[in-house]
Amino acid sequence: MKELKYILKPKSVVIVGASRIPGKVGHIILQNYINDGYSGKIYLVNRNEEEILGMRSYSRVTDIKADGIDLAVIAVPAEAVPGVLEDCGKAEVKSAVVVSGGFAEIGKQELQDEIVRIAKKYKIAMIGPNCLGVMDPRSRVNTLFLPSYKLAKPEIGGISFVAQSGAVGSTVLDLMAGEGFGISKFISYGNAADIDEVDILEYLMEDEETKVIAMYIEGIKRGKDFIELGKRITKKKPVIILKAGRTEAGATAAHSHTAALAGSYEAHEAVFRQFGFTIANDISELLYYSKIFASEAAPAGSRIGIITNGGGAGVLTTDAIASSRHMLLGELSEKSKSELKKVMPPLVNIANPLDLAGDADDRRYRDALTSMASDQGIDMIIVIILFQTPGADSRLAAEVVAMKEKTSKPMVVLSIGSEYTEMHKMMMERSGLPVYDSPRAVALSLEALYSYYKYKARFG
Amino acid sequence: MKELKYILKPKSVVIVGASRIPGKVGHIILQNYINDGYSGKIYLVNRNEEEILGMRSYSRVTDIKADGIDLAVIAVPAEAVPGVLEDCGKAEVKSAVVVSGGFAEIGKQELQDEIVRIAKKYKIAMIGPNCLGVMDPRSRVNTLFLPSYKLAKPEIGGISFVAQSGAVGSTVLDLMAGEGFGISKFISYGNAADIDEVDILEYLMEDEETKVIAMYIEGIKRGKDFIELGKRITKKKPVIILKAGRTEAGATAAHSHTAALAGSYEAHEAVFRQFGFTIANDISELLYYSKIFASEAAPAGSRIGIITNGGGAGVLTTDAIASSRHMLLGELSEKSKSELKKVMPPLVNIANPLDLAGDADDRRYRDALTSMASDQGIDMIIVIILFQTPGADSRLAAEVVAMKEKTSKPMVVLSIGSEYTEMHKMMMERSGLPVYDSPRAVALSLEALYSYYKYKARFG
Repeated sequence: MKELKYILKPKSVVIVGASRIPGKVGHIILQNYINDGYSGKIYLVNRNEEEILGMRSYSRVTDIKADGIDLAVIAVPAEAVPGVLEDCGKAEVKSAVVVSGGFAEIGKQELQDEIVRIAKKYKIAMIGPNCLGVMDPRSRVNTLFLPSYKLAKPEIGGISFVAQSGAVGSTVLDLMAGEGFGISKFISYGNAADIDEVDILEYLMEDEETKVIAMYIEGIKRGKDFIELGKRITKKKPVIILKAGRTEAGATAAHSHTAALAGSYEAHEAVFRQFGFTIANDISELLYYSKIFASEAAPAGSRIGIITNGGGAGVLTTDAIASSRHMLLGELSEKSKSELKKVMPPLVNIANPLDLAGDADDRRYRDALTSMASDQGIDMIIVIILFQTPGADSRLAAEVVAMKEKTSKPMVVLSIGSEYTEMHKMMMERSGLPVYDSPRAVALSLEALYSYYKYKARFG
Repeated sequence: MKELKYILKPKSVVIVGASRIPGKVGHIILQNYINDGYSGKIYLVNRNEEEILGMRSYSRVTDIKADGIDLAVIAVPAEAVPGVLEDCGKAEVKSAVVVSGGFAEIGKQELQDEIVRIAKKYKIAMIGPNCLGVMDPRSRVNTLFLPSYKLAKPEIGGISFVAQSGAVGSTVLDLMAGEGFGISKFISYGNAADIDEVDILEYLMEDEETKVIAMYIEGIKRGKDFIELGKRITKKKPVIILKAGRTEAGATAAHSHTAALAGSYEAHEAVFRQFGFTIANDISELLYYSKIFASEAAPAGSRIGIITNGGGAGVLTTDAIASSRHMLLGELSEKSKSELKKVMPPLVNIANPLDLAGDADDRRYRDALTSMASDQGIDMIIVIILFQTPGADSRLAAEVVAMKEKTSKPMVVLSIGSEYTEMHKMMMERSGLPVYDSPRAVALSLEALYSYYKYKARFG
């Protein structure tokens, strides 16, 4: 296993190609380390500068007097990378993230082979080249050289997201951060010249900070090793996989993008399924599944309870659940029914879906949730809150978050709307409650959750 | 055909049950008319008040000296509605929106029958009871009695949205407004005691302000009439339909919601398909299809061109297109290829998808769009813009909007991300360019567009 720990949790970092010029890659990365509050030692290397942003700059890595540096972030032109890596090796640098492009992806395979040779000679664990690199909000390592105002900053959490492609990676990261997801690690590994998807998965499998792994891949280099790992990894934690190149046209496009040999998607899919991976068919599904798994609740069965303040939304959600492969609507117990009859106004029809009516407030939701949470006939709960109605407000959102903390049953919220709704969705999402914006998304996510835990119970 | 014009374009309105108390239905509706700038004459009726918000209040509708009022908005307790309607009839009021609940939906069928009888006697066209009513941003009629800060306000546009359920209706309306859609009419018709879905569709079919009809229904009352109308309506304009109660469990839930007899969904679906309706299977699809049809561009064929600044996103979109039923990736003409070779940097591989690379700016997009717009091998264009990249900014968004205005080919944007991206999506959406947030959504929407225009060319 490659030593990713030096890349993700470095005690010291050298930025090679650090720059004082705003907009330059070597400037953005340095700014990231400063702004994010990285607490380790930072060294800078730029052969033309003696000082950058008030910090000393060295001409070469070998000039630095330090007992081995954990990580070198390399942002220099491709042809300069071999020399820099040699210096890193001599200075006993333990790992490197090469963000520079200009290697195999534009046909320069020899140059890429050369840096791999150097990395191996000095036992440097290397991510890249041609990648965005890594982000770890806990250790505050961040090599993403994108304009920071264009990307939302993720909070600390349990999802590790692995993407070969930097663009898909940063896009999904932005979306996750914007929705209030917490991130454990983000790793964009580009050409995978040294460290590849199998190395990364092996690391994340053992990483205790990682509760869920989400990944976007175009091709798999080491098929056998991937299968070996696949057998073990999903027994420990859920892995969601979005593979591009599912169609012939897509595979052709993937080949010209990262030279990935996509292979037959059917064969890949069969392996993914066999080993309990959760397959995402679209970027949106990658997000749906990431957040439901991050909530870390395992269902005891597939019977769904629905609480709603909008009848129509309850019907549509019932349709979505009833059309799913494994799930069905649960039957309320006699105990629940008699409890609910006592506390609900007469117009509320005691059934599942439980339509609390358009004037439902936090109190009515609490009563409904209390019954469903203890009802033996309900395994997972969908709480539909239409915030356009008079009784739905921040108190209600807080009430639902509090209930989620009290029950061990998986619980998700469905809320649809713009600004006022978004505000409450964000608040609930940040409190660890998965929130969705369509009945389809809810049904897909609960189905994925159920299927994974069923696999795990059987083989885990 | 019922006279919906008095409801949607009234020259005078009487609000029965107008109130000075904030939060009351009769207060919110009055505030709507004042805040939205309704320019017709407003009368108020409240038997306990002589003046409300500085306006005169009458005891009864018959006290008003006016030569017939176009619309009465009735927000009084259910049992008072028959008397109010009698008064409206005597005062020659032409139409009524009864927002009050407490009729057939809670078993009071007789009370409902009575108001229908009165409405028929006086030839009052009546929407409701138990409905949110109507909104028309052009005439500024707005009977939606929901807290205004919870709902985004829609702009004027071509989509008319019809929803039996008030909650689903207001939710989708909020979402449409929040995304920057323009609305022609919003009609929530509740119990459909008098005016029903067939009447509404007949009106909207002829309404020149309506370019697209989107509807949410739970049941259809007049099946034969619906079929008769179905044969004609889609030849004039696209109709998107989301029907709840697709499954047995859903149909049961729908019955307890609006007493709708959902009937066999398969039978409904067959009719919808036969008559060229666009079927939405989820609330999200209702939105996807509404905006692509609102852009009013008809494709000449099913060949797709993809322009992207992210390779991975291009591959995923290629997969989505190639997995669709009718669409395929177009082949760039020799002319396009040689044009593009001249203007593109060497690293850009001239192919479809056309990956402009992560540093693409407005100029590179313009060149790419110019070629694709005039290429005879491309019928529809997908423009992927990942705004996290350095070159993607407001200039680029403006450039794409300008191109959309120059070409007659359907053109959509795919952009994924949070705040910075959302800002640009909103700007493009408001300029009439449909923007989507997943490859799946793009593929579904283009497929729906293509299928509808194919139907129309054949039968229209």
